Amino acid sequence: MNLYLDLNENSYEIIIEPGLLHKADRYLDLDRKVLIVTDEGVPSAYAQSLAEQCLEPVIVTVPQGEDSKSIRVWESLLKTMLENGFKRTDAVVAIGGGVVGDLAGFTAASYMRGVDFYNIPTTVLSQVDSSIGGKTAVNFEGIKNIVGAFYQPKRVLIDTDLLNTLPGRQITNGLAEALKMAACFDEELFALFEKEDPFAHLPEIIEASLKIKKAVVEQDEKEGGIRKALNFGHTIGHGIESFEQLHGLYHGECVALGMIPMCSEEVRGRLVPILEKLGLPVTTCLDRKQVLDAMLHDKKAVEGGVTCVLCETIGHFELKKLDADALLERLSRI
Amino acid sequence: MNLYLDLNENSYEIIIEPGLLHKADRYLDLDRKVLIVTDEGVPSAYAQSLAEQCLEPVIVTVPQGEDSKSIRVWESLLKTMLENGFKRTDAVVAIGGGVVGDLAGFTAASYMRGVDFYNIPTTVLSQVDSSIGGKTAVNFEGIKNIVGAFYQPKRVLIDTDLLNTLPGRQITNGLAEALKMAACFDEELFALFEKEDPFAHLPEIIEASLKIKKAVVEQDEKEGGIRKALNFGHTIGHGIESFEQLHGLYHGECVALGMIPMCSEEVRGRLVPILEKLGLPVTTCLDRKQVLDAMLHDKKAVEGGVTCVLCETIGHFELKKLDADALLERLSRI
Repeated sequence: MNLYLDLNENSYEIIIEPGLLHKADRYLDLDRKVLIVTDEGVPSAYAQSLAEQCLEPVIVTVPQGEDSKSIRVWESLLKTMLENGFKRTDAVVAIGGGVVGDLAGFTAASYMRGVDFYNIPTTVLSQVDSSIGGKTAVNFEGIKNIVGAFYQPKRVLIDTDLLNTLPGRQITNGLAEALKMAACFDEELFALFEKEDPFAHLPEIIEASLKIKKAVVEQDEKEGGIRKALNFGHTIGHGIESFEQLHGLYHGECVALGMIPMCSEEVRGRLVPILEKLGLPVTTCLDRKQVLDAMLHDKKAVEGGVTCVLCETIGHFELKKLDADALLERLSRI
Repeated sequence: MNLYLDLNENSYEIIIEPGLLHKADRYLDLDRKVLIVTDEGVPSAYAQSLAEQCLEPVIVTVPQGEDSKSIRVWESLLKTMLENGFKRTDAVVAIGGGVVGDLAGFTAASYMRGVDFYNIPTTVLSQVDSSIGGKTAVNFEGIKNIVGAFYQPKRVLIDTDLLNTLPGRQITNGLAEALKMAACFDEELFALFEKEDPFAHLPEIIEASLKIKKAVVEQDEKEGGIRKALNFGHTIGHGIESFEQLHGLYHGECVALGMIPMCSEEVRGRLVPILEKLGLPVTTCLDRKQVLDAMLHDKKAVEGGVTCVLCETIGHFELKKLDADALLERLSRI
């Protein structure tokens, strides 16, 4: 299946098909210098397979994890491009999860003020969500995604075969983001999570999620309005994440926890059993006050409260400013 | 006079009027946190005057010169914004020449993936050329402008009163860029340079240059085609500049030298007397081979030659690939 993301001059295609990686050159212009960015957690055969299809490939493998989303690592990628004589007409490809996509995307956005960028996401999380929409960034001074660009890829290849080697926990990590979109936008997808075994319906869930993401980004490329709904679960989620990196919770797991307090009782009654079925956490022993402090240092914090996404009915959302007291009360629900 | 730069959703106004700085709040939304970036060469009263019109101003004064266009200084600006709690709805203003505009512009482009950017250029060079068009960048590993973004300002204020304190050499430095545009696009403006005293016609020259720049950028925002013509004089100019920073030649002076070898004999016969009248250099004792080497390391270098802008007839230009031998021959003309 192909999806066309219509963003005027920044439009591009998302191609969804098992086995795409091994025939990427049919869909991407690889007849030039190509910086392939991947990380140590991705099977090295993936980058190797792509490199064999490129005229002049340069593979860079960064350490796995958020620490690679830094100005220092971004600089090292720019330096590699310079040293290899990359020109404005060359390209960057990300093969990996969200960290690799964000880092490689910002590198492509800023080298010579922008070279072509392709994304081949290898995790459920990046396939359903982070690989499309043009958000690229690195972390800075302990704040996530604070430095970056809105820079759309030229094409995204979603090869569901690449998920076969993923550990189960990585799959549920991504399903949390799909469930987030279902809760706010798609009752039918939510029902699938409820009634079926989501692991047996991955391609279907990925397609449905991408359709939601496409529609949202087309309406609001730069996150001025409706795109904020995709932050459902993320306000508290980011607060938890800033602690939990030490304890090892994944992003999707933090989002799962972050969704629960932002739902009506009715929605929560349907959401929690799905999270439990998926093996996602539904409660935390973290100090609420500390999570709140972390949230209020988050970039979405504004005076007079934090804009949160609430889900009162499946398939719908609303934006509401919650002050510190209201947030603390919500936090007591997990 | 107002000019409207029509770039679809990136469109903006350029307002040209003496005395604008002191009533900037009529044209810019300063009712928020505003990072004012300036340098030590700009009268500090300028930033002070703007700060008095802002709700929450933060002034940063960087050292004068190209060295401030670095990743390190860019990082320090991002850090200042973080420390002062800047949000996505706040703004950055540049008050200075090209260095300040490029640096502040890239900071605005990348902080939280983009905040509003205003430019108040204070030199002839930045008023006629670099302040509009959306090119922002820093230097990296000794290469000029290699890391940056195309990021349009929300508004540009051209206050010709700010030029009153400029030394004469700074004025001619900027006039070289205006002359570059005249040679390639505007016979009438070129004739003004020839027949009149350009110093007595600064506002006229600035307006005419901005009209040319506007038309070029509207046709080619990302420099895929016609915008390359604005590089007239810059291929050799950058080569000279990479040496001459030590010897103290200004950018416009290097561009002046760079234009001469790229003209037909007829154009050269009219160009050189203007350069001499303005006090711009028309010859150099630099080693041609070294300049060539520097040019070939420049980002515009490509295999099989370097794309150069040639001016065979006043008001027209052509793009031509010149190989190393052809460039060396051209270099012998200055």
